[in-house]
Amino acid sequence: MVNRSSLEEAVLAGLRPAKEERDHVCGIAQRILEKIRQGGKAEGMVVGSIARHTWVKGDRDLDVFMLFDPSLSREQLEAEGLALARSIAAAFTDNYHEKYAEHPYINATIDDVDVDLVPCYKVESAARIQSAVDRTPFHTRYITEKINGLIDDVLLLKRFAKAGGIYGSDQMTEGFSGYLCELLVLHYGGFTPLLNAAAEWKPRTLIDVENHVAKEFDEPLVMIDPVDPKRNVAAAVSVDRMAEFVELARGYLESPSAAFFELPQEPPIAREDLEKLLDGRGTSLFAITFATPPYIEEIVVPQLKRSTLAISEFLERNGFAVHHADYRMGKEESLILVELLVSRLPAIRSHAGPPVWNRVNAEKFRAKYLMSDLPGPYIVNGRYETEVPREFRHAGDLLRSEGMLQVSLGKHVRQAFENGWKVHEGPACWSPGFASFIGGFFGRCSPLVSLGKGK
Amino acid sequence: MVNRSSLEEAVLAGLRPAKEERDHVCGIAQRILEKIRQGGKAEGMVVGSIARHTWVKGDRDLDVFMLFDPSLSREQLEAEGLALARSIAAAFTDNYHEKYAEHPYINATIDDVDVDLVPCYKVESAARIQSAVDRTPFHTRYITEKINGLIDDVLLLKRFAKAGGIYGSDQMTEGFSGYLCELLVLHYGGFTPLLNAAAEWKPRTLIDVENHVAKEFDEPLVMIDPVDPKRNVAAAVSVDRMAEFVELARGYLESPSAAFFELPQEPPIAREDLEKLLDGRGTSLFAITFATPPYIEEIVVPQLKRSTLAISEFLERNGFAVHHADYRMGKEESLILVELLVSRLPAIRSHAGPPVWNRVNAEKFRAKYLMSDLPGPYIVNGRYETEVPREFRHAGDLLRSEGMLQVSLGKHVRQAFENGWKVHEGPACWSPGFASFIGGFFGRCSPLVSLGKGK
Repeated sequence: MVNRSSLEEAVLAGLRPAKEERDHVCGIAQRILEKIRQGGKAEGMVVGSIARHTWVKGDRDLDVFMLFDPSLSREQLEAEGLALARSIAAAFTDNYHEKYAEHPYINATIDDVDVDLVPCYKVESAARIQSAVDRTPFHTRYITEKINGLIDDVLLLKRFAKAGGIYGSDQMTEGFSGYLCELLVLHYGGFTPLLNAAAEWKPRTLIDVENHVAKEFDEPLVMIDPVDPKRNVAAAVSVDRMAEFVELARGYLESPSAAFFELPQEPPIAREDLEKLLDGRGTSLFAITFATPPYIEEIVVPQLKRSTLAISEFLERNGFAVHHADYRMGKEESLILVELLVSRLPAIRSHAGPPVWNRVNAEKFRAKYLMSDLPGPYIVNGRYETEVPREFRHAGDLLRSEGMLQVSLGKHVRQAFENGWKVHEGPACWSPGFASFIGGFFGRCSPLVSLGKGK
Repeated sequence: MVNRSSLEEAVLAGLRPAKEERDHVCGIAQRILEKIRQGGKAEGMVVGSIARHTWVKGDRDLDVFMLFDPSLSREQLEAEGLALARSIAAAFTDNYHEKYAEHPYINATIDDVDVDLVPCYKVESAARIQSAVDRTPFHTRYITEKINGLIDDVLLLKRFAKAGGIYGSDQMTEGFSGYLCELLVLHYGGFTPLLNAAAEWKPRTLIDVENHVAKEFDEPLVMIDPVDPKRNVAAAVSVDRMAEFVELARGYLESPSAAFFELPQEPPIAREDLEKLLDGRGTSLFAITFATPPYIEEIVVPQLKRSTLAISEFLERNGFAVHHADYRMGKEESLILVELLVSRLPAIRSHAGPPVWNRVNAEKFRAKYLMSDLPGPYIVNGRYETEVPREFRHAGDLLRSEGMLQVSLGKHVRQAFENGWKVHEGPACWSPGFASFIGGFFGRCSPLVSLGKGK
């Protein structure tokens, strides 16, 4: 059995930023704050993990907020805020550009640090925020006040979650944000007590540090925001990411090892290996590729997810049993990958009709199918049923059909499809850009199992 | 449009027994009754359609009941009843033998008439019957008293039902008994008013001529026995036979024709036609054959029905989608015929595990499948799931496997299977003895549709 404290100490040595790194990043932060002060238009504040001392060595994400008078209109805030952010960025670098979340902000690269300059309102309490970004300073104040003595625990947890593939509240990950990690460590009093508790979590776990919950939540994990009783900090956490965290916690407590802190790798699969794999499995693989919609991940990924579900349902409705489906947003091209148990079906299918007792509809149905060459209409459990020719005998034809535009793709995915999509089958699904994704598709295991299998 | 009354008159001319036929059968009946009277042990009574004058030309089924004193024990009734029946039969013919329903009775062929000599108790009212046969004399008295003027209507209805394939309360037909036909005509006041009503029937139609229902019934058609308020005369009628009667009624009212009274024929299919048919359909046909259990239809057919359902479920549970299944009890050999949409499946399948939240079971499941070469265990909706090798990739192997003996076959069908069963595939399912049945399997239509298609 590995010694936990020496193992964790060794991991921490690789996570804590060195003094020079800290001085360097903090120096840049200080210079930016000074510039803001000189401008006199807003109050500067460093937020995020750097402000909270919970950043991991090598991270270079510096978030500087510029807090404006809340009497400004939204338009004024956006105009003045952006102007200020731009002028500050320009004082340090030419390498900056506008970005957009709920508001526009400026992203600049200053030395090797990725700096966000974000205008927001300086509100008196979190209850008065006018947009989500106004909440961030409160989070920073809350954590900064309480996190003393638990910073190592936060660093361990963040790395543990990242290694397990469950770190990040983005749409693709549906996992644990940095702020959530901080609150979990605070609430349970450390990394180990958190793991002990998580090993016994069940869906609908509610954590309310400030004991002020003011709303019903139905997400599997609920962490009431200490600065906003109506917000679930864990809203992004899917039930599967939660379950994966639970099994990682159990696994680490049972047999701790450095592997729990090593970043996962998705090894690419070679085309000839895919070919052999498919031969052995006897399944039918289809890849649908199309131009990635020109929008950010937060918009595109949920649409890819919905489209994958809708296409799977479309296949099932047409008799093709889906074994597994997944999607990947690439830079230029996105992909929906579907593995079918069956890709060829008979020429006929059953078609259900009305109950015989419904005279009007029953007679219409009978009249319509009476002279078909196929068996039927016949009566099953008091209802008419008949055989009809199957429109699509091959899944590939179905996936290439116009009917694909009728399924519930997201708006931008549909636009992409309207410009065309390609359907590949079998080993032809392989492409160098998606070789890792396809490898992961066929190697899928929960994080703890991946460790157990030595991947 | 055909003239209904002249059409029906022409049909009736072929149904009414001629005077000589009536005299001949009634003569035999009289001589049997006389013998019983002479014996002095029981009272003789002709029952069934011959007694009620509702028999169809050519029918030669004479039912003579021998009513004994109800103070006799059951053993005495069986012994004395059988002795009397035997002595009477012997007075007319050597061609008689014992049969068994609820009691033993004697079946004899006297001239060309098939005579049943059935001992029963002479009870005072139908409420006091000691076995089902005791009820029959009450039925006969009830119908004989009331049927005057409606005999032609009963003959028409019986033929109409027989032509539609829905006449008979046996297990194979699940249709309309003669007594039920008589009561329907009585209740509605004739063949045409019955059809008018039936065209609008819905499941849970309740007919209670004597207005004395004394029990809840959940069959689709309920005809309260006028002589027994706790009995449904239509208990055998399945919802599909009821629906078929409804559609025949509608069809005949809309466009009457002689075809509605012509007995159906199931044309045999030729082996090479079956081969072509299967090629065109692209389905997979399997026939399971085995020695017919040496019991009467009433016992074997329900077991075949249950076995067909159980084998279909067994196929579906193993991933083979069943399109249609049916069974046929042959003299020597019986057959279960199954048409599949898919008969070959991949090497792998998904296997669901416990929720991750159930720590004990989750850890057992993970440990069990951890080192498998296949993907998994992974987490889906908070539950473990994994891939496992599929035991049977081909439906034929599954149908030949020992697992067949674990499905819910009936007792005697299982005994037959224990002595072996054969599995045939594709055109090899064909055999001369089942050529008509197989033709019907692929030509299945409701009775009215069969008429419409000119079959």
